[in-house]
Amino acid sequence: MKRILGIDPGLLHTGWAIIDVAGGERKYIASGVILPPTKMSLSERLAFIFNGVFELCENFRPTECSIEVIFVNKNGKTTLLLGHARAAAITAVAVKNIPVFEYEPNKVKKALTSMGHADKDQIYKMLSILLPAAHPKTSDESDAIAIALTHANTSRFG
Amino acid sequence: MKRILGIDPGLLHTGWAIIDVAGGERKYIASGVILPPTKMSLSERLAFIFNGVFELCENFRPTECSIEVIFVNKNGKTTLLLGHARAAAITAVAVKNIPVFEYEPNKVKKALTSMGHADKDQIYKMLSILLPAAHPKTSDESDAIAIALTHANTSRFG
Repeated sequence: MKRILGIDPGLLHTGWAIIDVAGGERKYIASGVILPPTKMSLSERLAFIFNGVFELCENFRPTECSIEVIFVNKNGKTTLLLGHARAAAITAVAVKNIPVFEYEPNKVKKALTSMGHADKDQIYKMLSILLPAAHPKTSDESDAIAIALTHANTSRFG
Repeated sequence: MKRILGIDPGLLHTGWAIIDVAGGERKYIASGVILPPTKMSLSERLAFIFNGVFELCENFRPTECSIEVIFVNKNGKTTLLLGHARAAAITAVAVKNIPVFEYEPNKVKKALTSMGHADKDQIYKMLSILLPAAHPKTSDESDAIAIALTHANTSRFG
């Protein structure tokens, strides 16, 4: 049995999800969003995200972590800030010696819908079929579940 | 008296420096480089940098931290990776509740040489005048001293 922590990072809200995988079975355990108070500075936000993910690792004891690869697009500054949030989350997992697996966005789409160009609605529909117990309240949470499921569907472990 | 931790982050080598400031006096305390083993993955490197900076905070108890602002340039991918290293370092300082001050590269040059376009050699020369006790062995170390001194010279505290 593997327990996967999926993370959808962001400086404003970081989605997370925990799913268990044993053979072909996937079980939804929990999901949520880490929300740093709006007044926080960049460094305070990074510490808040780090502490939030660190606590998740303490409480749920995931055996693996799954997160999306990001690319610099037109808005380089935004991507760079997102990269900071991503790094704070990865660091919290890595200091607990939990291996981190990175997936490109089109791999996430393909792993869940078998289409590299699936839209968000198609992905969310697949999530509700694959994990009916999950009732994500935000897209950050859904995206975290999607990245956790991607790792479950990509790596064949029991 | 303030104790400043200057950081020059990087996934390969992260320079650091500690200087004390009291009134107009600056005193070199220590400097060095955090070197993650070359075989490490991205997440392992981030944890290594985090742990290294965290230990510096435990050992030297800095009261403030100073680090350069980075910008996305032509090589977006490299900047994004540098941003991850930077975030791991900032996170380690921020979880210790030490305030982080960010300076743009031209502010560093100006604070040390009064020229926004000074070259590396001019900056290193100024470092040896301002802090003769410092004998940095690498440019990462020199750059960390420079960013620490920038904060000392910019903020007027005693």
